[in-house]
Amino acid sequence: MTQTTAERWDIFEVALEGPTEGNPFLDVTFGATFTHGHRAVEVEGFYDGVNDDRSSGIYRVRLMPDEVGEWRYTTRSSAADLDGKTGGFTCTPAEEGNHGPVHVHNTYHWQYADGTPHFSFGTTCYVWNHQGDAMETQTLETLKDAPFTKMRMCTFPKHYTYSHNEPEYHAFEIKDDGTFDLERFNPAFFQHLEQCIAGLRDLNIEADLILFHPYDRWGYAEMPSEVDDRYLHYIVARLAAYRNMWWSMANEFDLMKAKSMEDWDRFFKTVQTLDPYQHPRSNHNCRVFYDHGKPWVTHCSIQRSDLENVNRWRDEYRKPVVVDECQYEGNIPFNWGNISAQEMTHRFWEGFVRGGYVGHGETYVHPDDVLWWSKGGVLHGQSAPRIAFLREVMEAGPQIDPLTTNWNLTESGDDVYRLVYMGRHQPVSKTLRLPEDRQYTIDVIDTWEMTISRLDGTYSGECSVGLPGKPHVALRVRAVE
Amino acid sequence: MTQTTAERWDIFEVALEGPTEGNPFLDVTFGATFTHGHRAVEVEGFYDGVNDDRSSGIYRVRLMPDEVGEWRYTTRSSAADLDGKTGGFTCTPAEEGNHGPVHVHNTYHWQYADGTPHFSFGTTCYVWNHQGDAMETQTLETLKDAPFTKMRMCTFPKHYTYSHNEPEYHAFEIKDDGTFDLERFNPAFFQHLEQCIAGLRDLNIEADLILFHPYDRWGYAEMPSEVDDRYLHYIVARLAAYRNMWWSMANEFDLMKAKSMEDWDRFFKTVQTLDPYQHPRSNHNCRVFYDHGKPWVTHCSIQRSDLENVNRWRDEYRKPVVVDECQYEGNIPFNWGNISAQEMTHRFWEGFVRGGYVGHGETYVHPDDVLWWSKGGVLHGQSAPRIAFLREVMEAGPQIDPLTTNWNLTESGDDVYRLVYMGRHQPVSKTLRLPEDRQYTIDVIDTWEMTISRLDGTYSGECSVGLPGKPHVALRVRAVE
Repeated sequence: MTQTTAERWDIFEVALEGPTEGNPFLDVTFGATFTHGHRAVEVEGFYDGVNDDRSSGIYRVRLMPDEVGEWRYTTRSSAADLDGKTGGFTCTPAEEGNHGPVHVHNTYHWQYADGTPHFSFGTTCYVWNHQGDAMETQTLETLKDAPFTKMRMCTFPKHYTYSHNEPEYHAFEIKDDGTFDLERFNPAFFQHLEQCIAGLRDLNIEADLILFHPYDRWGYAEMPSEVDDRYLHYIVARLAAYRNMWWSMANEFDLMKAKSMEDWDRFFKTVQTLDPYQHPRSNHNCRVFYDHGKPWVTHCSIQRSDLENVNRWRDEYRKPVVVDECQYEGNIPFNWGNISAQEMTHRFWEGFVRGGYVGHGETYVHPDDVLWWSKGGVLHGQSAPRIAFLREVMEAGPQIDPLTTNWNLTESGDDVYRLVYMGRHQPVSKTLRLPEDRQYTIDVIDTWEMTISRLDGTYSGECSVGLPGKPHVALRVRAVE
Repeated sequence: MTQTTAERWDIFEVALEGPTEGNPFLDVTFGATFTHGHRAVEVEGFYDGVNDDRSSGIYRVRLMPDEVGEWRYTTRSSAADLDGKTGGFTCTPAEEGNHGPVHVHNTYHWQYADGTPHFSFGTTCYVWNHQGDAMETQTLETLKDAPFTKMRMCTFPKHYTYSHNEPEYHAFEIKDDGTFDLERFNPAFFQHLEQCIAGLRDLNIEADLILFHPYDRWGYAEMPSEVDDRYLHYIVARLAAYRNMWWSMANEFDLMKAKSMEDWDRFFKTVQTLDPYQHPRSNHNCRVFYDHGKPWVTHCSIQRSDLENVNRWRDEYRKPVVVDECQYEGNIPFNWGNISAQEMTHRFWEGFVRGGYVGHGETYVHPDDVLWWSKGGVLHGQSAPRIAFLREVMEAGPQIDPLTTNWNLTESGDDVYRLVYMGRHQPVSKTLRLPEDRQYTIDVIDTWEMTISRLDGTYSGECSVGLPGKPHVALRVRAVE
């Protein structure tokens, strides 16, 4: 059964039967060249274990075609059975809801390949993919009605407070002595991960996949360099064809004592070299930033609570700023996981209005230790509906660059749209300086109550605007068409 | 009528009649040496204008005696009438409520001369002393029931938003052409200022007198250097004997374009040289700090909203940190004057628990532009009672040094008292690490509701404590006697 068509930005796969003897993970090279007219795309394939009757091995090579029309391929391999196979397929137009992969559009902002702006409203469920089918299905159900467009999640299981359960799958075969065979991946582990990523893709959620992290009792955090590298080859070969992939080198890279800065740089360059689609790449800090200015970093992935610095980081790195972790809504004893819903909502507005992107997470005490931030499940907090409201507001406007002074709305060439947020301030009036030659409408937005009130009339030039005199209010100023 | 006794830390004054011809402000030198046993204190005197029948000039020289017992004096002057006069008085013990002047006690904290700790709970009414008797009386009435122990106020009137009224007094005589005679002070101006400072003293409120400021339409901000210096001599000679004096070189020194850094350094050194009592000296910033590390600065006087940096500034300057301006409670259009009462209360707790001191101000829109921050009058906000509550909590405990980690209460030698504040965090429990060898009581303090709830039982060693799961809660941990 050969695939003869593939939707644009979906997956075309060539699956071939090949050798099982020796160690296919080490012994067999496999890949393909896909061509579209005179254009050629080289991709690596991967070994996916034995077929059902264990008579042969399954080798797969994948393409995410980005142009409609005819594509051809030729495989290459060190194994004769896998070498020189040719074929082709027709790439059909993307169907509704398939906007393609996300890339940096204009220095600070994201866009899908079809030109739709992408607003990164992230959430974090670090190891939702290691909780078994029932809870994983529940998590996807929750996400269906949630406002999030990106999920931070780990390849490997996590050993940490509230996350001590043993995962169903491990990434390596287990030897008779109970230890990992670091030379043999466990295809079932990666097949399951892939299903989870496909589940997110079907909800139009980007999978910000954390490749390494420090919270470990199995050895994933301290693998030898050659295993790290083999893992990167394997996971990029398997997953890069998913249009919703993002690569996060680490969660809290600076806490991983076994890795050096040279390792991090090498990981980035390896992924950059292998990924034909150049999915977003970043590295998330605990205390100290990885240098987001390095050329292989596509955007800042930041753990910080001081969202008022978002425009400084934009200026400093001149890349999109994604504050993936600004602490979590919840009530656990740790300060990183016990801010109020009001505070989380405030931080989202602060970050977005400054031209950045902010990530959510929830950490409410739970009798069975099911905290959204780690395992997924259902949401318990009150910030998610406010984040949905913010998303509606953001998606109804252009992707914005922050004002250097909030109230002089004449300062930039963009004189059609302004969004200002007053945060902890509660003025009863503001003087706006609008361009003289246009008329503007003004909406007063209560970010907590989720109301939008249009002020009477239109405004122009310097004008005073009455306000409700309470905190957490935003103003939206739009030119009359 | 010669004064023969003076209360300790009150004022002993020698008033003599002397020449009026020429310009007494420039032509006559006058001062005295006060002695107590073998100790001598040199002070400058000042010319206070003519007597009632204008037949002669009044010259005054003042001492704030700091030791009980017999004091003698001898005057010195370039005028024969004022030179070589001798006399004495008996210094009697301080009466109840008179704790003497405030000085830095132990690097980071304040103490009155009688050993009573001073907790600096400041407020700001920049020019309450330029509003006429009725409102000035009203301001003092308000302060009687308010929690404040320090007032930031200016010598000179202020020209700024909400403060455009013409003052009753000016500091200089006015010439026929309407301009100031910069060689002749107006004694009535300074007599009135003195009454205001005495009014504060009678309420046990420190007068943090701002000597220069940029908000001016009369010329006070741009006087020639020799006039600045004469003014400093005059004001120190007149006011230093008030036990509640503090010298603030400026409000927002960095906005005063006519002054150089050399000027600021010279002002400090001039005051330091002249003031026999070494009242506290500081310099308040707008955007950029004056270097509080300079040796003539007694404490940091800071305008900033990021109270979480208080312990950093303590470490950096190793002096008391007074955040005199952390924005004001109110609802005016400017962000420096429209934070909520909740936010002001939060900033006070944040600053105090980090071992610093915080200042208040109120800027609610008023039909007659009477804003507390500028003119005084009455309080309209909701933070003042919460600041009173915080003051009660602080005064019931020792002056504290902040914990470097909030929850390891064993970290310092001081194992009898800990105050931790959770700010925007809302944990339902915390694990405390207390010393193993003592028992502790724990109070849960709701900083907004102003309640203190004692937890049942006593605690020791590592222990988990249930908490209300709401923001703005503090814990007070005290060793059982």
